[in-house]
Amino acid sequence: MTTKKVTLTDVAERAGVSTTTASYILNGRSAEMRISADAERRVREAVAHLGYRPNRNARSLRTRTTSTFGVISDFVASGHFASQMLAGASAAARASEHLLVIGETQGDPALEHLLIEEMLDRQVDGIVYATLTSLEVRVPAELKRLRTVLLNCVDPTTNIPAVLPDEYAGGRTAAGVLLDAGVTGEIHVIGEDPTPNALAGPGRLEGIRARLAEAGRSVTSVVPCHWGVEDAYDAVDAWLRRGARPAGLLCLNDRIAMGTYQALAGNGLHVPRDVSVVSFDGSELATWLRPRVVSVALPFNELGARAVQALVDPGWADVGTVRLPMPLAPGGSVRSPAVGARG
Amino acid sequence: MTTKKVTLTDVAERAGVSTTTASYILNGRSAEMRISADAERRVREAVAHLGYRPNRNARSLRTRTTSTFGVISDFVASGHFASQMLAGASAAARASEHLLVIGETQGDPALEHLLIEEMLDRQVDGIVYATLTSLEVRVPAELKRLRTVLLNCVDPTTNIPAVLPDEYAGGRTAAGVLLDAGVTGEIHVIGEDPTPNALAGPGRLEGIRARLAEAGRSVTSVVPCHWGVEDAYDAVDAWLRRGARPAGLLCLNDRIAMGTYQALAGNGLHVPRDVSVVSFDGSELATWLRPRVVSVALPFNELGARAVQALVDPGWADVGTVRLPMPLAPGGSVRSPAVGARG
Repeated sequence: MTTKKVTLTDVAERAGVSTTTASYILNGRSAEMRISADAERRVREAVAHLGYRPNRNARSLRTRTTSTFGVISDFVASGHFASQMLAGASAAARASEHLLVIGETQGDPALEHLLIEEMLDRQVDGIVYATLTSLEVRVPAELKRLRTVLLNCVDPTTNIPAVLPDEYAGGRTAAGVLLDAGVTGEIHVIGEDPTPNALAGPGRLEGIRARLAEAGRSVTSVVPCHWGVEDAYDAVDAWLRRGARPAGLLCLNDRIAMGTYQALAGNGLHVPRDVSVVSFDGSELATWLRPRVVSVALPFNELGARAVQALVDPGWADVGTVRLPMPLAPGGSVRSPAVGARG
Repeated sequence: MTTKKVTLTDVAERAGVSTTTASYILNGRSAEMRISADAERRVREAVAHLGYRPNRNARSLRTRTTSTFGVISDFVASGHFASQMLAGASAAARASEHLLVIGETQGDPALEHLLIEEMLDRQVDGIVYATLTSLEVRVPAELKRLRTVLLNCVDPTTNIPAVLPDEYAGGRTAAGVLLDAGVTGEIHVIGEDPTPNALAGPGRLEGIRARLAEAGRSVTSVVPCHWGVEDAYDAVDAWLRRGARPAGLLCLNDRIAMGTYQALAGNGLHVPRDVSVVSFDGSELATWLRPRVVSVALPFNELGARAVQALVDPGWADVGTVRLPMPLAPGGSVRSPAVGARG
C-alpha cells in the first residue's frame, strides 16, 4: 500500500513522452498539437495503470469554481435532527453535483469565525448557515458577502434567503387534531421553550392558541418544563399529583411526550382512553411510544434539501423566507370520536 | 448584498497599483521588490476594505496539500450514532487543522464509487471510511492507494488501519454486571443481529457466553428479534406469555431494551425487582427509560476522534486494528445484591 501521489511526471515517464505532451493529451488537445495516436494510447494506459488523477485544484483554479458548498452549523453533527437535515442537504448537493464541506461551531462565536474564514479561503460556491433548533439569529457579517442560505433560522435584519419549518401552522394542526377528535375537556400545553431567540416553542404555542380560539376554546394552562424526557416526567407527575384533570395534552416535542406518557402511566391514566396526547417533531421516538403518539413532524430532510436547492437556484436572491409545512405523523394517542365523549 | 468575488485586480485598482505589485505585496515580497511603504499601506487598506481573500486553491496547488480529510460513510448523516462519530471526527480534524468533506453513500456501491472519485479528484489528504454499524467489509480498491482509516468496520484482507469498538469485551462486561449483582436465575439474551457481516451482535454474544462460562453459567436462550423497539416488544411479549421466567435479560441494544421494558410492564413484571436488565449502546434512549437501563456504551465520539488521529499519525501505516473499550453507563435496572436473592 502506498500513499504517494501519482504525478503527471510519473505518467509521462511511464508513457515515454514529455510532461508537456502528456498534459496536451489529457487536456484533449492531441489533434490540435498533432500528437500521435500511439503516444496518446501509451499515456492513457499509463493513467489507468498508475491511477493518475488530474489535479482538481488546478482545474478549479482555471474555472474559478470549486463545486463545493459549505455548511456552517452550531450542532450539525451532534443530533439526530441535524443529521436528517444534513442528509437532505447532502442528497440535494449531490443532485446538483456539489460536495458539502461541513463545519460545526458548537455555538462558539470564535470557532464560528474561524470556520467561516476557512470556508472563505476555500472559495466555496455558497454557504448553508444552519442551527439545530429554529432560531432568530444575527448572521456574521462575512456571510453577507457570500451566496448564503439560512437553514432552520432567520435573520430579520437581512434579506438572506431562509428555509425553516412553519411552526405556527404546525401549532394550528396539533390543536386541530384534538378539536376534530371531539376532545371537550381541558386542553393543556406541556413545555416552554427555554432557548433564547427560539422560534419553535413560541410559534407552536401561538398556532395552538389561534386554532383553539377559532373554536371558542382556549389553553387551560401551560405546564412549564425543559424539553427533555426526565424534566417532562417530573413536571407532569407533580402536576397530576396536585389534581390536574386534563382531557387533551399538547406536548411541545416528542421527548416531552415520552416523559408525559411515563407520568400518565405512573398515575394510572391511560392514553388515549383517559387522556389524548399530540406531540411535535415527528421523530423516531414518537413511533416507539405505546401507543404511537400523533406528532406534527419537522420536515428535516426537506429543510436541508430546500436550503441547498435555494443556493443553486438562479433566482437565489429572491427566494426570501420559505416556511415548509409540518406534516402530521399518525398514531394511536388520540381518542377516536367514534368511541364517544369521555365519561 | 453582493456575491461577486473580490479579485486581486479589484484590490490593485482601489490601491492604484498594478496587479503584479499587489501580488508581490501580498506574497511578502515588498522589500525584495523595492515596493514603497505607501503602496504597501494602500494595498493592505484595499484588502481590508474589500474583504479580499487570496485564492486558497492557488496556494494549495503550490503546496500540493488541501488540508482536507474525506469521510465516506454508508449512513453517516442519517443516525444519531453516526452523528456522534462525526462530531468526534470533526473535533479531531479541527485540532489538526483539517476540514472534513463528508459524503454519504446510503449503502449504494455506485454512489460510493462516485464519491470516492470526487474525493480523489479533490486530492484529500486522507479518507475515513465509516459504517453506521460495526461491519466486516471489503474496501473499494481505489482506497488502497490513499491514506485511509476504517471507522467502525474492518477489512481482514488488508492491513488498512481500523478503529472500532471492542464488542467482545463489551459482552463480557454486560454479563459481569448480572453476575456481580448475584442474579442466580435464568439469563436470556434478547435480539439477534440481522445484518450480514455484522460484528456487534456476534461479538457481544460471544463475550457474554465466555464470561458466563467462566462462572459456570450459560445463556438459557436467545430470543430472536430485529433491533427495533416494536420488534422487541412483540417478541418479548409473546415469549413472556408463553411462560418464560427470566431473572436477567441482556438486550443487544437500547431500542431492544425499550421494547423489552414495555413488554415486561405489560406482563406485570417490574424492573429491577422481578427482572434485571442490561443493554448495549449507551445511547440517550438508555437514560430515558424508567428506571434508566444499565448499558454498555459505544464510545462514538472517541471512535470518530481516534480514526482522524490515526490519519494524522506519522506512524499511520502501523496503527493496525484499534478496538476501543465500551464503558458502562450506569442505571437502576439491575437488582442490587443488597436486596437479597429473588424469592
